[in-house]
Amino acid sequence: MAEPIAFRFDFASPYSYLASERIDALAERFGREVVWKPVLLGAIFKHYGTVQLTRQPGMHDYALRDFARSASFHGISFRMPLRFPVATQAPARAYYWLLDQDEALAKRFAHAVFRTYFGDGRDVSEPATILNVAAKLDVDPVSLSSAMEDPAVKERLREETDAAIALGMFGAPWITVDGEHFWGNDRLSQVEYWLENGGF
Amino acid sequence: MAEPIAFRFDFASPYSYLASERIDALAERFGREVVWKPVLLGAIFKHYGTVQLTRQPGMHDYALRDFARSASFHGISFRMPLRFPVATQAPARAYYWLLDQDEALAKRFAHAVFRTYFGDGRDVSEPATILNVAAKLDVDPVSLSSAMEDPAVKERLREETDAAIALGMFGAPWITVDGEHFWGNDRLSQVEYWLENGGF
Repeated sequence: MAEPIAFRFDFASPYSYLASERIDALAERFGREVVWKPVLLGAIFKHYGTVQLTRQPGMHDYALRDFARSASFHGISFRMPLRFPVATQAPARAYYWLLDQDEALAKRFAHAVFRTYFGDGRDVSEPATILNVAAKLDVDPVSLSSAMEDPAVKERLREETDAAIALGMFGAPWITVDGEHFWGNDRLSQVEYWLENGGF
Repeated sequence: MAEPIAFRFDFASPYSYLASERIDALAERFGREVVWKPVLLGAIFKHYGTVQLTRQPGMHDYALRDFARSASFHGISFRMPLRFPVATQAPARAYYWLLDQDEALAKRFAHAVFRTYFGDGRDVSEPATILNVAAKLDVDPVSLSSAMEDPAVKERLREETDAAIALGMFGAPWITVDGEHFWGNDRLSQVEYWLENGGF
Protein backbone atom coordinates (compact mmCIF):
# COMPACT_ATOMS: atom_id res chain seq x y z
CA MET A 1 0.00 0.00 0.00
CA ALA A 2 1.43 3.38 -1.04
CA GLU A 3 2.03 6.07 1.57
CA PRO A 4 -0.84 8.52 1.97
CA ILE A 5 -0.56 11.82 0.11
CA ALA A 6 0.20 14.65 2.55
CA PHE A 7 -1.82 17.84 2.09
CA ARG A 8 -0.33 20.70 4.11
CA PHE A 9 -2.19 23.99 4.27
CA ASP A 10 -3.25 26.98 6.31
CA PHE A 11 -6.97 27.52 6.93
CA ALA A 12 -6.58 31.16 5.81
CA SER A 13 -4.98 30.34 2.44
CA PRO A 14 -7.38 30.79 -0.50
CA TYR A 15 -5.52 28.39 -2.79
CA SER A 16 -5.46 25.84 0.06
CA TYR A 17 -9.24 26.15 0.26
CA LEU A 18 -9.55 25.49 -3.48
CA ALA A 19 -7.25 22.46 -3.24
CA SER A 20 -9.16 21.18 -0.19
CA GLU A 21 -12.30 20.93 -2.33
CA ARG A 22 -10.50 18.86 -4.96
CA ILE A 23 -7.72 16.74 -3.51
CA ASP A 24 -9.63 13.85 -1.92
CA ALA A 25 -11.66 13.11 -5.05
CA LEU A 26 -8.47 13.20 -7.13
CA ALA A 27 -6.60 10.84 -4.80
CA GLU A 28 -9.56 8.48 -4.59
CA ARG A 29 -9.49 7.96 -8.37
CA PHE A 30 -6.05 6.43 -7.86
CA GLY A 31 -6.97 4.53 -4.70
CA ARG A 32 -4.83 6.84 -2.55
CA GLU A 33 -5.49 8.29 0.91
CA VAL A 34 -4.85 11.93 1.83
CA VAL A 35 -3.65 13.03 5.26
CA TRP A 36 -4.52 16.65 5.97
CA LYS A 37 -2.05 18.70 7.99
CA PRO A 38 -2.86 22.32 8.83
CA VAL A 39 0.18 24.46 9.63
CA LEU A 40 0.80 28.12 10.40
CA LEU A 41 1.79 29.84 7.18
CA GLY A 42 2.64 32.99 9.13
CA ALA A 43 5.39 31.08 10.96
CA ILE A 44 6.66 29.73 7.64
CA PHE A 45 6.76 33.21 6.09
CA LYS A 46 8.53 34.48 9.19
CA HIS A 47 11.10 31.70 8.88
CA TYR A 48 11.91 32.70 5.29
CA GLY A 49 11.39 36.45 5.71
CA THR A 50 8.66 36.40 3.07
CA VAL A 51 5.09 37.75 2.93
CA GLN A 52 1.76 36.55 1.64
CA LEU A 53 0.95 37.02 -2.06
CA THR A 54 -1.47 39.90 -1.49
CA ARG A 55 1.30 41.88 0.22
CA GLN A 56 3.90 41.29 -2.45
CA PRO A 57 4.69 44.42 -4.47
CA GLY A 58 2.25 44.97 -7.31
CA MET A 59 0.36 41.73 -6.68
CA HIS A 60 -2.53 42.73 -4.40
CA ASP A 61 -5.26 43.40 -6.96
CA TYR A 62 -4.12 40.62 -9.27
CA ALA A 63 -4.11 38.09 -6.42
CA LEU A 64 -7.66 38.96 -5.36
CA ARG A 65 -8.84 38.66 -8.95
CA ASP A 66 -7.00 35.35 -9.37
CA PHE A 67 -8.54 33.85 -6.21
CA ALA A 68 -12.06 34.55 -7.50
CA ARG A 69 -11.28 33.51 -11.07
CA SER A 70 -9.61 30.26 -9.96
CA ALA A 71 -12.60 29.41 -7.74
CA SER A 72 -15.00 30.04 -10.60
CA PHE A 73 -12.79 28.00 -12.96
CA HIS A 74 -13.13 25.00 -10.64
CA GLY A 75 -16.80 25.64 -9.88
CA ILE A 76 -16.10 26.27 -6.20
CA SER A 77 -18.15 28.76 -4.21
CA PHE A 78 -15.86 31.54 -2.96
CA ARG A 79 -16.19 34.87 -1.22
CA MET A 80 -13.17 36.88 -0.12
CA PRO A 81 -13.43 37.37 3.65
CA LEU A 82 -13.40 40.96 4.89
CA ARG A 83 -10.72 40.05 7.44
CA PHE A 84 -7.82 38.49 5.55
CA PRO A 85 -5.65 36.77 6.43
CA VAL A 86 -6.46 35.72 10.00
CA ALA A 87 -4.53 33.71 12.58
CA THR A 88 -5.52 30.05 12.38
CA GLN A 89 -4.24 28.59 15.65
CA ALA A 90 -7.78 27.90 16.89
CA PRO A 91 -9.01 25.77 13.96
CA ALA A 92 -5.62 24.07 13.47
CA ARG A 93 -5.39 23.03 17.13
CA ALA A 94 -9.00 21.85 17.06
CA TYR A 95 -8.21 19.83 13.95
CA TYR A 96 -5.28 17.93 15.50
CA TRP A 97 -7.24 17.22 18.64
CA LEU A 98 -10.08 15.77 16.54
CA LEU A 99 -7.64 13.87 14.30
CA ASP A 100 -6.40 11.77 17.19
CA GLN A 101 -9.98 10.71 17.90
CA ASP A 102 -11.60 10.34 14.49
CA GLU A 103 -9.83 11.08 11.19
CA ALA A 104 -13.03 11.27 9.15
CA LEU A 105 -14.59 13.69 11.62
CA ALA A 106 -11.43 15.83 11.59
CA LYS A 107 -11.63 16.08 7.81
CA ARG A 108 -15.32 17.04 7.90
CA PHE A 109 -14.40 19.68 10.45
CA ALA A 110 -11.57 21.01 8.25
CA HIS A 111 -13.93 21.30 5.27
CA ALA A 112 -16.43 23.13 7.47
CA VAL A 113 -13.76 25.59 8.67
CA PHE A 114 -12.63 26.38 5.12
CA ARG A 115 -16.24 26.85 3.96
CA THR A 116 -17.04 29.03 6.96
CA TYR A 117 -14.13 31.33 6.14
CA PHE A 118 -14.16 31.40 2.32
CA GLY A 119 -17.83 30.57 1.79
CA ASP A 120 -19.56 32.54 4.53
CA GLY A 121 -16.73 35.00 5.17
CA ARG A 122 -16.84 34.37 8.94
CA ASP A 123 -13.69 34.96 10.98
CA VAL A 124 -12.27 31.53 11.84
CA SER A 125 -9.57 32.95 14.11
CA GLU A 126 -12.22 33.26 16.83
CA PRO A 127 -12.49 30.22 19.14
CA ALA A 128 -16.23 30.95 19.43
CA THR A 129 -16.64 30.50 15.68
CA ILE A 130 -14.68 27.25 15.81
CA LEU A 131 -16.81 25.91 18.67
CA ASN A 132 -19.86 26.80 16.62
CA VAL A 133 -18.54 25.01 13.53
CA ALA A 134 -17.62 21.95 15.61
CA ALA A 135 -20.96 21.90 17.44
CA LYS A 136 -22.72 21.29 14.12
CA LEU A 137 -20.61 18.12 13.83
CA ASP A 138 -21.66 17.07 17.35
CA VAL A 139 -18.29 17.83 18.91
CA ASP A 140 -18.58 18.60 22.62
CA PRO A 141 -17.81 22.34 23.02
CA VAL A 142 -16.48 22.04 26.57
CA SER A 143 -13.88 19.41 25.67
CA LEU A 144 -12.91 21.23 22.48
CA SER A 145 -12.62 24.54 24.29
CA SER A 146 -10.09 23.13 26.73
CA ALA A 147 -8.30 21.20 23.97
CA MET A 148 -7.59 24.47 22.13
CA GLU A 149 -5.78 25.68 25.27
CA ASP A 150 -4.04 22.39 25.99
CA PRO A 151 -0.23 22.85 25.91
CA ALA A 152 0.21 19.43 24.27
CA VAL A 153 -2.18 20.38 21.45
CA LYS A 154 -0.43 23.71 20.99
CA GLU A 155 2.90 21.91 20.85
CA ARG A 156 1.54 19.49 18.24
CA LEU A 157 0.73 22.39 15.91
CA ARG A 158 4.18 23.90 16.44
CA GLU A 159 5.77 20.55 15.64
CA GLU A 160 3.74 20.10 12.47
CA THR A 161 4.71 23.60 11.32
CA ASP A 162 8.39 22.98 12.08
CA ALA A 163 8.22 19.66 10.23
CA ALA A 164 6.70 21.41 7.21
CA ILE A 165 9.55 23.91 7.16
CA ALA A 166 12.06 21.07 7.53
CA LEU A 167 10.76 19.38 4.40
CA GLY A 168 10.95 22.61 2.39
CA MET A 169 7.42 24.02 2.53
CA PHE A 170 7.50 27.76 1.75
CA GLY A 171 3.91 28.30 0.58
CA ALA A 172 0.47 26.70 0.67
CA PRO A 173 -1.00 24.38 -0.28
CA TRP A 174 1.94 21.96 -0.21
CA ILE A 175 1.23 18.48 -1.51
CA THR A 176 3.65 15.60 -1.06
CA VAL A 177 3.18 12.39 -3.00
CA ASP A 178 5.78 9.61 -2.93
CA GLY A 179 8.33 12.11 -1.58
CA GLU A 180 7.70 14.60 -4.40
CA HIS A 181 6.54 18.09 -3.38
CA PHE A 182 4.04 20.19 -5.30
CA TRP A 183 3.20 23.78 -4.39
CA GLY A 184 -0.15 25.31 -5.21
CA ASN A 185 -3.69 24.44 -6.16
CA ASP A 186 -2.58 24.94 -9.75
CA ARG A 187 -0.21 21.98 -9.48
CA LEU A 188 -2.99 19.44 -8.84
CA SER A 189 -2.95 18.64 -12.55
CA GLN A 190 0.71 17.61 -12.14
CA VAL A 191 -0.14 15.64 -8.99
CA GLU A 192 -2.70 13.84 -11.14
CA TYR A 193 -0.04 13.19 -13.80
CA TRP A 194 2.27 11.81 -11.12
CA LEU A 195 -0.42 9.51 -9.72
CA GLU A 196 -1.20 8.28 -13.21
CA ASN A 197 2.38 7.74 -14.38
CA GLY A 198 4.37 7.27 -11.18
CA GLY A 199 6.75 10.09 -12.10
CA PHE A 200 7.67 12.56 -14.82
CA MET B 1 -12.70 41.03 -35.06
CA ALA B 2 -11.53 40.68 -31.47
CA GLU B 3 -8.31 42.36 -30.35
CA PRO B 4 -5.24 40.13 -30.56
CA ILE B 5 -4.15 38.40 -27.37
CA ALA B 6 -1.00 40.04 -25.97
CA PHE B 7 1.74 37.68 -24.82
CA ARG B 8 4.38 39.53 -22.80
CA PHE B 9 7.49 37.69 -21.74
CA ASP B 10 11.22 37.75 -21.18
CA PHE B 11 13.41 35.46 -23.28
CA ALA B 12 15.15 34.25 -20.10
CA SER B 13 11.93 33.21 -18.29
CA PRO B 14 11.42 29.43 -18.20
CA TYR B 15 7.65 29.65 -17.78
CA SER B 16 7.54 32.13 -20.68
CA TYR B 17 9.32 29.57 -22.82
CA LEU B 18 6.75 26.92 -21.90
CA ALA B 19 3.89 29.30 -22.69
CA SER B 20 5.54 30.30 -25.98
CA GLU B 21 5.30 26.69 -27.13
CA ARG B 22 1.57 26.56 -26.38
CA ILE B 23 -0.12 29.92 -26.78
CA ASP B 24 -0.46 30.23 -30.56
CA ALA B 25 -2.08 26.81 -30.98
CA LEU B 26 -4.47 27.62 -28.14
CA ALA B 27 -5.46 30.99 -29.61
CA GLU B 28 -5.86 29.52 -33.07
CA ARG B 29 -8.50 27.09 -31.82
CA PHE B 30 -10.61 30.15 -31.03
CA GLY B 31 -9.68 32.07 -34.18
CA ARG B 32 -7.59 34.56 -32.23
CA GLU B 33 -4.26 36.18 -33.06
CA VAL B 34 -1.40 36.53 -30.57
CA VAL B 35 0.96 39.51 -30.52
CA TRP B 36 4.28 38.67 -28.85
CA LYS B 37 5.96 41.38 -26.82
CA PRO B 38 9.31 40.67 -25.17
CA VAL B 39 10.12 42.93 -22.23
CA LEU B 40 12.92 43.16 -19.68
CA LEU B 41 11.83 41.32 -16.56
CA GLY B 42 14.87 42.62 -14.70
CA ALA B 43 13.57 46.19 -15.13
CA ILE B 44 10.14 45.08 -13.92
CA PHE B 45 11.62 43.39 -10.82
CA LYS B 46 13.69 46.51 -10.19
CA HIS B 47 10.55 48.65 -10.41
CA TYR B 48 8.80 46.56 -7.75
CA GLY B 49 11.89 45.74 -5.69
CA THR B 50 11.32 42.04 -6.25
CA VAL B 51 13.55 39.16 -7.41
CA GLN B 52 13.20 36.17 -9.68
CA LEU B 53 11.65 32.98 -8.32
CA THR B 54 14.95 31.11 -8.03
CA ARG B 55 16.30 33.84 -5.73
CA GLN B 56 13.27 33.94 -3.44
CA PRO B 57 13.97 32.50 0.00
CA GLY B 58 13.58 28.73 0.11
CA MET B 59 12.42 28.48 -3.51
CA HIS B 60 15.59 27.80 -5.51
CA ASP B 61 15.57 24.01 -5.62
CA TYR B 62 11.80 23.79 -5.88
CA ALA B 63 11.74 26.24 -8.80
CA LEU B 64 14.35 24.29 -10.77
CA ARG B 65 12.44 21.08 -10.18
CA ASP B 66 9.17 22.73 -11.17
CA PHE B 67 10.60 24.10 -14.43
CA ALA B 68 11.67 20.62 -15.52
CA ARG B 69 8.50 18.93 -14.29
CA SER B 70 6.24 21.49 -15.97
CA ALA B 71 8.12 21.10 -19.26
CA SER B 72 7.78 17.34 -19.07
CA PHE B 73 4.08 17.67 -18.16
CA HIS B 74 3.50 19.62 -21.40
CA GLY B 75 5.81 17.43 -23.47
CA ILE B 76 8.19 20.31 -24.15
CA SER B 77 11.92 19.74 -24.49
CA PHE B 78 13.74 21.66 -21.74
CA ARG B 79 17.25 21.96 -20.38
CA MET B 80 18.15 24.42 -17.66
CA PRO B 81 20.86 26.73 -19.06
CA LEU B 82 24.11 26.89 -17.10
CA ARG B 83 23.98 30.69 -17.17
CA PHE B 84 20.62 31.73 -15.73
CA PRO B 85 19.11 34.21 -15.98
CA VAL B 86 20.82 36.28 -18.64
CA ALA B 87 20.19 39.80 -19.93
CA THR B 88 17.89 39.71 -22.95
CA GLN B 89 18.32 43.12 -24.55
CA ALA B 90 19.95 41.62 -27.66
CA PRO B 91 17.17 39.17 -28.63
CA ALA B 92 14.39 41.56 -27.56
CA ARG B 93 15.76 44.43 -29.66
CA ALA B 94 16.29 42.10 -32.60
CA TYR B 95 12.69 40.91 -32.22
CA TYR B 96 11.16 44.41 -32.40
CA TRP B 97 13.32 45.31 -35.38
CA LEU B 98 12.11 42.17 -37.18
CA LEU B 99 8.51 42.72 -36.10
CA ASP B 100 8.28 45.98 -37.99
CA GLN B 101 9.33 44.17 -41.16
CA ASP B 102 7.65 40.78 -40.96
CA GLU B 103 5.53 39.63 -38.02
CA ALA B 104 5.66 35.93 -38.95
CA LEU B 105 9.44 36.05 -39.25
CA ALA B 106 9.71 37.83 -35.90
CA LYS B 107 7.71 35.05 -34.26
CA ARG B 108 9.84 32.33 -35.86
CA PHE B 109 12.88 34.20 -34.57
CA ALA B 110 11.41 34.42 -31.05
CA HIS B 111 10.72 30.66 -31.03
CA ALA B 112 14.30 30.05 -32.19
CA VAL B 113 15.71 32.25 -29.40
CA PHE B 114 13.71 30.45 -26.70
CA ARG B 115 14.74 27.05 -28.06
CA THR B 116 18.37 28.11 -28.29
CA TYR B 117 18.37 29.13 -24.63
CA PHE B 118 16.14 26.49 -23.01
CA GLY B 119 16.65 23.72 -25.55
CA ASP B 120 20.35 23.97 -26.39
CA GLY B 121 21.37 25.92 -23.27
CA ARG B 122 23.23 28.53 -25.33
CA ASP B 123 23.65 32.03 -23.91
CA VAL B 124 21.22 34.30 -25.77
CA SER B 125 22.52 37.46 -24.11
CA GLU B 126 25.39 37.39 -26.63
CA PRO B 127 24.76 39.40 -29.82
CA ALA B 128 26.88 36.83 -31.69
CA THR B 129 24.47 34.05 -30.67
CA ILE B 130 21.52 36.18 -31.78
CA LEU B 131 23.12 36.89 -35.16
CA ASN B 132 23.68 33.17 -35.54
CA VAL B 133 20.06 32.35 -34.68
CA ALA B 134 18.81 35.02 -37.09
CA ALA B 135 21.15 33.94 -39.88
CA LYS B 136 19.42 30.56 -39.96
CA LEU B 137 16.22 32.47 -40.77
CA ASP B 138 17.98 34.35 -43.58
CA VAL B 139 18.16 37.61 -41.68
CA ASP B 140 21.03 39.80 -42.87
CA PRO B 141 23.59 39.87 -40.02
CA VAL B 142 25.00 43.30 -40.90
CA SER B 143 21.60 45.02 -40.78
CA LEU B 144 20.60 43.17 -37.62
CA SER B 145 23.89 43.96 -35.93
CA SER B 146 23.41 47.69 -36.42
CA ALA B 147 19.70 47.43 -35.51
CA MET B 148 20.61 46.02 -32.08
CA GLU B 149 22.67 49.19 -31.48
CA ASP B 150 20.11 51.56 -32.98
CA PRO B 151 18.90 54.09 -30.34
CA ALA B 152 15.37 53.95 -31.75
CA VAL B 153 15.26 50.17 -31.36
CA LYS B 154 16.65 50.41 -27.83
CA GLU B 155 14.02 53.02 -27.01
CA ARG B 156 11.29 50.77 -28.40
CA LEU B 157 12.22 48.02 -25.93
CA ARG B 158 12.27 50.50 -23.04
CA GLU B 159 8.82 51.75 -24.05
CA GLU B 160 7.41 48.24 -24.26
CA THR B 161 8.79 47.43 -20.80
CA ASP B 162 7.39 50.66 -19.35
CA ALA B 163 4.02 49.94 -20.96
CA ALA B 164 4.02 46.46 -19.41
CA ILE B 165 4.65 47.93 -15.97
CA ALA B 166 1.91 50.51 -16.56
CA LEU B 167 -0.65 47.78 -17.18
CA GLY B 168 0.34 45.90 -14.03
CA MET B 169 2.77 43.25 -15.24
CA PHE B 170 4.91 42.02 -12.32
CA GLY B 171 5.96 38.60 -13.61
CA ALA B 172 6.23 36.56 -16.80
CA PRO B 173 4.61 35.34 -18.87
CA TRP B 174 1.80 37.92 -18.80
CA ILE B 175 -1.14 37.22 -21.06
CA THR B 176 -3.82 39.81 -21.77
CA VAL B 177 -7.05 38.77 -23.42
CA ASP B 178 -9.97 41.20 -23.81
CA GLY B 179 -8.41 43.44 -21.14
CA GLU B 180 -8.09 40.55 -18.65
CA HIS B 181 -4.60 39.76 -17.36
CA PHE B 182 -3.29 36.27 -16.62
CA TRP B 183 0.10 35.59 -15.05
CA GLY B 184 1.97 32.37 -15.67
CA ASN B 185 2.16 29.41 -17.99
CA ASP B 186 -0.08 27.64 -15.47
CA ARG B 187 -2.90 30.09 -16.21
CA LEU B 188 -3.23 29.07 -19.87
CA SER B 189 -6.03 26.71 -18.84
CA GLN B 190 -7.91 29.76 -17.53
CA VAL B 191 -7.08 31.71 -20.69
CA GLU B 192 -8.66 28.81 -22.57
CA TYR B 193 -11.72 28.98 -20.32
CA TRP B 194 -11.97 32.71 -20.99
CA LEU B 195 -11.73 32.24 -24.76
CA GLU B 196 -14.38 29.54 -24.62
CA ASN B 197 -16.83 31.37 -22.36
CA GLY B 198 -16.02 35.05 -22.81
CA GLY B 199 -15.49 35.51 -19.09
CA PHE B 200 -15.77 33.80 -15.73
